[in-house]
Amino acid sequence: MSKGLPKRSENYSEWYNEIIKRADLAENSAVRGCMIIKPYGYAIWEKMQRALDDMFKATGHQNAYFPLFVPKSFLEKEEEHAEGFAKECAVVTHYRLKANPDGKGLIVDPNAKLEEELIIRPTSETVIWNAYKNWIQSWRDLPLLINQWANVVRWEMRTRLFLRTAEFLWQEGHTAHATEQEAVEETERMLGVYATFAEEWMAMPVIKGLKTPAERFAGAIETYCIEALMQDGKALQSGTSHFLGQNFARSFDVQFTNKEGKLEYAWATSWGVSTRLMGALIMAHSDDNGLVLPPKLAPIQVVIVPIYKGEDDLAIISEKVNPIYEELKTAGVSVKYDDDDKQRSGWKFAEYELRGVPVRLGLGMRDLENGTIEVVRRDTLSKESRPLEGIAGYVKSLLEEIQSNIYRKAFDFREENTFRVETWNDFKSQIEKGGFISAHWDGTSETEEKIKQETKATIRCIPLDTPEEAGVDVYSGKPSNKRVIFARAY
Amino acid sequence: MSKGLPKRSENYSEWYNEIIKRADLAENSAVRGCMIIKPYGYAIWEKMQRALDDMFKATGHQNAYFPLFVPKSFLEKEEEHAEGFAKECAVVTHYRLKANPDGKGLIVDPNAKLEEELIIRPTSETVIWNAYKNWIQSWRDLPLLINQWANVVRWEMRTRLFLRTAEFLWQEGHTAHATEQEAVEETERMLGVYATFAEEWMAMPVIKGLKTPAERFAGAIETYCIEALMQDGKALQSGTSHFLGQNFARSFDVQFTNKEGKLEYAWATSWGVSTRLMGALIMAHSDDNGLVLPPKLAPIQVVIVPIYKGEDDLAIISEKVNPIYEELKTAGVSVKYDDDDKQRSGWKFAEYELRGVPVRLGLGMRDLENGTIEVVRRDTLSKESRPLEGIAGYVKSLLEEIQSNIYRKAFDFREENTFRVETWNDFKSQIEKGGFISAHWDGTSETEEKIKQETKATIRCIPLDTPEEAGVDVYSGKPSNKRVIFARAY
Repeated sequence: MSKGLPKRSENYSEWYNEIIKRADLAENSAVRGCMIIKPYGYAIWEKMQRALDDMFKATGHQNAYFPLFVPKSFLEKEEEHAEGFAKECAVVTHYRLKANPDGKGLIVDPNAKLEEELIIRPTSETVIWNAYKNWIQSWRDLPLLINQWANVVRWEMRTRLFLRTAEFLWQEGHTAHATEQEAVEETERMLGVYATFAEEWMAMPVIKGLKTPAERFAGAIETYCIEALMQDGKALQSGTSHFLGQNFARSFDVQFTNKEGKLEYAWATSWGVSTRLMGALIMAHSDDNGLVLPPKLAPIQVVIVPIYKGEDDLAIISEKVNPIYEELKTAGVSVKYDDDDKQRSGWKFAEYELRGVPVRLGLGMRDLENGTIEVVRRDTLSKESRPLEGIAGYVKSLLEEIQSNIYRKAFDFREENTFRVETWNDFKSQIEKGGFISAHWDGTSETEEKIKQETKATIRCIPLDTPEEAGVDVYSGKPSNKRVIFARAY
Repeated sequence: MSKGLPKRSENYSEWYNEIIKRADLAENSAVRGCMIIKPYGYAIWEKMQRALDDMFKATGHQNAYFPLFVPKSFLEKEEEHAEGFAKECAVVTHYRLKANPDGKGLIVDPNAKLEEELIIRPTSETVIWNAYKNWIQSWRDLPLLINQWANVVRWEMRTRLFLRTAEFLWQEGHTAHATEQEAVEETERMLGVYATFAEEWMAMPVIKGLKTPAERFAGAIETYCIEALMQDGKALQSGTSHFLGQNFARSFDVQFTNKEGKLEYAWATSWGVSTRLMGALIMAHSDDNGLVLPPKLAPIQVVIVPIYKGEDDLAIISEKVNPIYEELKTAGVSVKYDDDDKQRSGWKFAEYELRGVPVRLGLGMRDLENGTIEVVRRDTLSKESRPLEGIAGYVKSLLEEIQSNIYRKAFDFREENTFRVETWNDFKSQIEKGGFISAHWDGTSETEEKIKQETKATIRCIPLDTPEEAGVDVYSGKPSNKRVIFARAY
């Protein structure tokens, strides 16, 4: 039931948590910071996975699987990388429990201490580049284009369902190339794949850009990202693609013989998106009535609810529904006919609204008499009566219209909430109201850090498509030749 | 190159390892007992996953995701379960590393000790039933039919690629039911799904049966299994389905209100298959020339290799290949046209043979003149020249024929290597030669254990379809009313 869902305008954070709970997407587990992704939430994630995986394969990548464990010595090999991840990692020290000699239960067996501690992977660059050492000998072995779907663990202290959890699910691409240029092209290509996925599947507009040095991935030369704006005016980093240069090749000694017969270090990229996208999806589109899902990612795209009094009515309605159901199914639409008699139709309406099912069809005896059917759109909540004749075709085009409309709405919201700011006073007052701030930055980490301390705003990215433009830094007053995007962020 | 692959008859174990290596399926990682599944191996696993996942969904199951970590106290709750898994588990004790104050590198931060140790899941009954406590209140919440695709860790001391690794990938189904009967039916239904998958997809005949009490899953009332026979005469347990009774419901206090309004503990099942199936697939069908894959699980079902001297020839051949390629692709066949000019056609032939590609088509200038194409089957290695006209249709039916033939071959092998044995002397001499032994057993764990000690043979299962039959135990001479299947096993 959607009754009592907190309003976005009153308590955005509570609203977010409640949607996740009531739409049955996920919940916290008994282990601090680790979530359980429930079937309905996981079905959305599976749709995301399938779409992304198809895009990765279409761009020449293959999947593989690397171990969960990172030997401590691997992490030590790339200094910045180690520094970035050592502070928040789960460490395996023993490989056995035994009965407690002093009483009940189990204790760690002190005789089963590992010679070298193992870290649960926070990301797999080290493990993968250690393997690549044996896979790459010659330029003929390159490019090596590999992706992995996996769980990773980062021991975050403050966690939030989907947005920041100790364990999360993700994909991580790890590629090796013969030249710097090819690696940079790959980094940008995969950023493009992420942006396309965000916009065409999640119906979520994103800004493609570069991170500042302070915000780069630990061990990267350059980090590209896509940034989205949530309805509360905060930014959400939705995917990153890293150009790693030759850092990992050097750390793990991955050299290949180039076409000229000379030994050279391979060039690397890595890129990932995670179950964090579920958080983005929820926050980008949902409303005070519950989840709003873009049809392309909705586990159920269309639900048909019969409105009836007795079994006889239901039989008549069902007979009418069957060919519509079959026609939609044949057309590739994910459709559910909910003739469960344990719940009333009103309860079902509320439930599917809460769960964000894009189109609801209601069919009662009166509709049958009139040869009509009730069509309710989740995105606009508008209701209309349509002729039964040709309804499947209508619904199919309506799903496309909803997909576009959700995107348009999110796009308009972002445009209305992106502000060009020229002065520090304006910056300070605007940041309190939320949104993306497009402002000049002098390019120094010092200024960036001061702005962060004073306003909690970070540079989300240096947009790729921003033209050069003479100006002065909004904080320091020093010269700048480009605007960057500031925001408070998740 | 398949040159120098060890022969099965000479060194089966070496042959197995070499196939995995040369067909690029997997390799050992730097972490003891953990494997890297390489792209070609992973592509086969993905096909297995997709087929199984479709079957799970068709039988009403939904996917979800539960945490990697099991609190030590959870493991302690079900005594037998704890005993079964405590001895071989990876234990997380700390959540941070820090710079080594005495020198280089990182050390475990002693201030970041967990209050309670976390076990990397060896299986997820405890974590999942702890969650089910909140999900199940009434009979209306049942049955709960959930599956998870995940990695698990069991700290095995002697590991073997795919067959026994410290970390492996699997799926684990965990269901809850209102009645014992429903739970038993579910256990048997999923065993049936596994058997169907093994036979129809893996082309591997299996015996469905029950495990003896000694071989049961830790915490189960009854363990069902499918057992397959490998080419060296050893058995391989390929999947298990457990009826857990109310054990986990009691341990985690999962009670529901039944239709009569009374509180009752829920009835449980769990069932799983793992990347071990990759080992079974390799060992069931492959030959001294390399991998043999059933078409339904082959990442590349058909490869087309042009045989040419110069670029002009290649252009002419490619023009002829294109419509065949397109026709196969449209028909849903996974086809590759290998026109890579870095390798000679002879090298390619050997390579695709090694990788088990079911059908190879070779097309040269002479074929074009004759309007023919060379067709080579991987399963029989037979070669024939076929008219180019209608080749796509021919190949499509050939793939079906190969799928059946591989199954038939494995089935015949098993029939020829299943022996009814009546005396202990015959048993001892037969077990040395390998194969399944069908013999009478008196039903006691003592006899079972003695037979194991003397011959290394275990009771693989009590087949579900074995008729009752009066007899005497092959070892103890005590009365028996049923034959069971003995074998040495992986």
